[in-house]
Parts: sequence; C-alpha cells; structure tokens
Amino acid sequence: MRILGLDPGLATLGYGCIEIHGNTCQVCDFGVITTPSDAPVGDRLQSLYTDLHTLIPALQPDWVALERLFFYKMSHTIVVAQARGVILLVLSQLHCPLMEFTPPQVKQALTGYGNAAKMDVQQAVQRELNLSTLPKPDDAADALAIALTASRHCDSINS
Amino acid sequence: MRILGLDPGLATLGYGCIEIHGNTCQVCDFGVITTPSDAPVGDRLQSLYTDLHTLIPALQPDWVALERLFFYKMSHTIVVAQARGVILLVLSQLHCPLMEFTPPQVKQALTGYGNAAKMDVQQAVQRELNLSTLPKPDDAADALAIALTASRHCDSINS
Repeated sequence: MRILGLDPGLATLGYGCIEIHGNTCQVCDFGVITTPSDAPVGDRLQSLYTDLHTLIPALQPDWVALERLFFYKMSHTIVVAQARGVILLVLSQLHCPLMEFTPPQVKQALTGYGNAAKMDVQQAVQRELNLSTLPKPDDAADALAIALTASRHCDSINS
Repeated sequence: MRILGLDPGLATLGYGCIEIHGNTCQVCDFGVITTPSDAPVGDRLQSLYTDLHTLIPALQPDWVALERLFFYKMSHTIVVAQARGVILLVLSQLHCPLMEFTPPQVKQALTGYGNAAKMDVQQAVQRELNLSTLPKPDDAADALAIALTASRHCDSINS
C-alpha cells in the first residue's frame, strides 16, 4: 500500500510518499513544491494546482494524508488555508481517499508525545524509514511524518 | 464596464454583477452558489470550481471584486479561506483582473461609515441600483455591495 503525506503551504508544500509491505515501510519519494513569492496569489495557487495534478498521478498513492490546519498566526493560517482548499479540490478531482491529522496527532503517533519537538519527530521519521540522514527540507520531513501517521491508521487495511 | 462582486463562502457563495455606463449603474445578475452541507469538503470545493467556471464566462466581467477575509471565528475563517483559495485559482485560470476589499472598506464606500449595520449597506445597494426591493439573499446583496465598491475604484478607467 502506498501513502502520500502532504504538508500544506503556499510558498512551500511538502510531500512524502511511503510504501508499506507487511511490516516494512520504505520511502518512495519526498520533496517540496514551491511557488514564487513575488507572483500574485492566484497564479501561485494555479502553479500548486498544476504541480499536484502532475505529482499525484505519478506517485499513484492508495491514500493521501493531509495535515489539518492548526490555529497559528491568523494571517498565515488564511494563506495556508487557501492553498489547502486547492489541495482538497485536486484530491477530489483525482478521487483520492483522504485522511487528515492535526500536528499533535502526528507528534503523538511518531514519538508518543503530542507536544514533541520538531527534531524528535524528524529523528523518528529517519529511524522508521531507515534513512541515512534526516530527511530535508523540513516540509518534506513533516509530510513523511504525516504519511507514517496515516500508516498506523491503515493497519486493518494492511494486515 | 462590467464588474462581478464575489462574497466567498463554502456553503453559500454570493455573486452580484453590475454594468456601468457613464454615471449609470445597473444590475446584470445576482444570486448565490450553494454546496450541500453533507458532502465532503473536497467535493463541495469541486462543485464551487465547476459552477464558477460556468458563471464567470457567462457574465463576462471586466473586473472581479472579491471580499478579503476578515478575522472572525477561526474555524469558520479556515473553511471560507479554503473556498477563497479555489475562487482565486479559478480567477487566475480565467485571467480575470482582480480587486480586493475588506468588509469595512465596503461599508465605508457605500454608507460613509466603516462599521455600518448590514441593513444600512443593503439599503444603499438598493438605492444605488434602483431596485424595487432589498436584494436577497444576504450573500448576494453583499456581493453587489462589493461590486459597487469596486466601481468607485474604477472611476479613472470608466471616465
């Protein structure tokens, strides 16, 4: 089973795709989609839309796991929520089954502690996926963490 | 010159289109796009996306005026911001010139008072557009108010 994790953002959208076979879990791909900060917001959303329509069919995930928005700084939350609207649109257009998790749910799943530090989560991702280094950049690491969280919720499908 | 005002929302998106000839201002069309509350958010955003891709080319506006999000209740703001992301995407895809206004800017433009009551704004819309009754529903009236606000900013283009 293949799970794609997405960490929503307008400037940088993280993605991380993992493949699960029995008890083993491997990375397929991870990285970020970026949009230019000097472009109008609508054009940046169009760029995300086009890139997601290329990325998702290429990765062919069975599930997509998306971070729920958490109350942060209001102006930042609105910008991310607008990007998240485009992500949800694309997932609907591509008929992708969706799971959603809050940041504390992801931290809890990976470290056992809902208020864990970013570094602890990244080290858990590195360990679970047998990576030789910490996954970079941070948004891609977050996306892998979301995908791993989703994998825990797919145990009944996977077994 | 034709201006389409949009009042963003997921359950109800208001639209109001006005036509300006010299000093006269007439309504072309107004109403709401609605999405079913029991459907998944992604499907509702897809429904907005499809309806906007039908509505906007049919109305052929020279400008689209969109309400900026104002800090309201956080969970509500995230839902509306996701819908607004899809609106901005569609406007970029259709190459629509865009103006944006906050609710106080709209109230100020129509009543001279940035904290005016909803009814005062609706009565100003009715008066300016020579309507026999108050425009309904409220979201459509708000969209007409946004379009009228934009018309004030197009004076240099219009004259």
